[in-house]
Amino acid sequence: MTTPTSSVPFSDRLAAAVRRCRNPVVVGLDPRIEQLPAGLQPADRSATASAAAYRTFCCGVIDAAAALVPAVKPQVAFFEALGPAGFQALADVIAHARRAGLLVIADAKRGDIGSTAEAYADAWLGSSAPTGFGGDALTVNPYLGHDSLEPFVTVARERAAGLFVLVKTSNPGGGQFQDLAINGAETVYRHVAALVEHLALESRGSGHYGDVGAVVGATYAAQLAELRAAMPHSWLLVPGYGSQGAGARDVAAGFDAEGLGAVVNNSRAIIFAHARKPYSETFGAARWQEAVRAATEQMIAELQAETTVGRL
Amino acid sequence: MTTPTSSVPFSDRLAAAVRRCRNPVVVGLDPRIEQLPAGLQPADRSATASAAAYRTFCCGVIDAAAALVPAVKPQVAFFEALGPAGFQALADVIAHARRAGLLVIADAKRGDIGSTAEAYADAWLGSSAPTGFGGDALTVNPYLGHDSLEPFVTVARERAAGLFVLVKTSNPGGGQFQDLAINGAETVYRHVAALVEHLALESRGSGHYGDVGAVVGATYAAQLAELRAAMPHSWLLVPGYGSQGAGARDVAAGFDAEGLGAVVNNSRAIIFAHARKPYSETFGAARWQEAVRAATEQMIAELQAETTVGRL
Repeated sequence: MTTPTSSVPFSDRLAAAVRRCRNPVVVGLDPRIEQLPAGLQPADRSATASAAAYRTFCCGVIDAAAALVPAVKPQVAFFEALGPAGFQALADVIAHARRAGLLVIADAKRGDIGSTAEAYADAWLGSSAPTGFGGDALTVNPYLGHDSLEPFVTVARERAAGLFVLVKTSNPGGGQFQDLAINGAETVYRHVAALVEHLALESRGSGHYGDVGAVVGATYAAQLAELRAAMPHSWLLVPGYGSQGAGARDVAAGFDAEGLGAVVNNSRAIIFAHARKPYSETFGAARWQEAVRAATEQMIAELQAETTVGRL
Repeated sequence: MTTPTSSVPFSDRLAAAVRRCRNPVVVGLDPRIEQLPAGLQPADRSATASAAAYRTFCCGVIDAAAALVPAVKPQVAFFEALGPAGFQALADVIAHARRAGLLVIADAKRGDIGSTAEAYADAWLGSSAPTGFGGDALTVNPYLGHDSLEPFVTVARERAAGLFVLVKTSNPGGGQFQDLAINGAETVYRHVAALVEHLALESRGSGHYGDVGAVVGATYAAQLAELRAAMPHSWLLVPGYGSQGAGARDVAAGFDAEGLGAVVNNSRAIIFAHARKPYSETFGAARWQEAVRAATEQMIAELQAETTVGRL
């Protein structure tokens, strides 16, 4: 059922995919029933019908974008809201993305301790286990401390998979605890960043970056630059592009001189492009996959024009 | 498929259940395939067979403990590790517990922002949605700040459900970020506690406590007392009893003078009691449900003897 696990470290696979595609765009798979193109709206809103619609829609997004970008990021919550049927759809979507040659970053923001953390890692990372979802990388929450991350790191290493630890999130209230200053000096997020950089150094592949990276929102440009410097060996997963308000200049500080070191997620502004101008006028709901492709190409062009991504 | 949602606030239902049972024990449903009683070990380790074994085992634990305790706490990770089949088993287990009259605290430690957080809340809280898992309460992670908790609070209010926010966790490394002192004074966990108390006050039912509570580990007794005082209107969900090393005296500071205000979770030392002395000798694997019952009664007796729970 699952594709064999790669033995090439995640960090090397990500770098190779970014170089091959000449861009770092991650298409976020955040299906919402009300926003699906009209032709894909299910007749009833049962879990089974909604899950089938999510499967069709997300596989369609993958088909539209697979030749353009290195990775997709399914947002687990939207599938989880549909219960077991949603998880079956998600498993199918992940398998479809892997068959299309895309890396899959499962955005689940999991975090727990000991054997519980190991169970979450087992669920989401790699596909050597016959039971789980088979992602290439997983987002995790650091609030429970280093020993809560260790089981994730161990499983990731065994399966040549990756992790992105929440460091500085893109939401307006993200600073409430993350920006608290310890003794008037380093913030909580810098303490988390120090742990991530340590784990990144310990998990380096054949290249510069490690398999443990960080989530750093695009909506705080100054802190993105600060955190790029604080975690020189960590891949950054940067959300907030597009619908959350950030653009190419806001994420420029995330990249190194070669255009590597960061991947930038865009969910709604790509997958629901059919509903916004200019794509709604050019394509409309019926040609929604063309809208996905055009919006993706637009974002790639913006990043290539405004950042070191142009040097890839 | 699902039981109708109660319109009585979670905090009131929890207080009533604790008073009725005269104890605050939460039985943690943490199934692990290697630790199941021999007769329940599946012949093969496929996801389907393992999920069926988890369903049988957890429903058996519920049958053994339902007359004794107010609530169960399924640990979502162990089901999640089995993929879609695991989630179907979990949905069945939750429905079985609700039919048995138990409150269900889904231990999923979710945390995200905006509509994503709303999707998680939709999945786990209440059963007015036909699609989700139908828990009475959910554990959530505060790292993303107040605006990440608001969607959970809103959905919880709509469905008369509850939340337990991670404040101070029971693991050895829990202090790495939680104990950082802001300007040499209040710790990160006290900042989180202040938010929880605010949300608790805003969500009070007809009694003293609110629908938003806190997870505070039993393994740090001094901090449990500190946090009981800092969050006078918050139910505390206290893990760490039993296999993690804490006993009745360690959790005593969590209760108010009436024996309310805290519920204490015990997972492995109850559900796998058949494998440890004295229960392994008295009952053994074949009579594992009697071992569950005896271990639960023992924990209840300890709490009644050593804490204000005896006054219930």
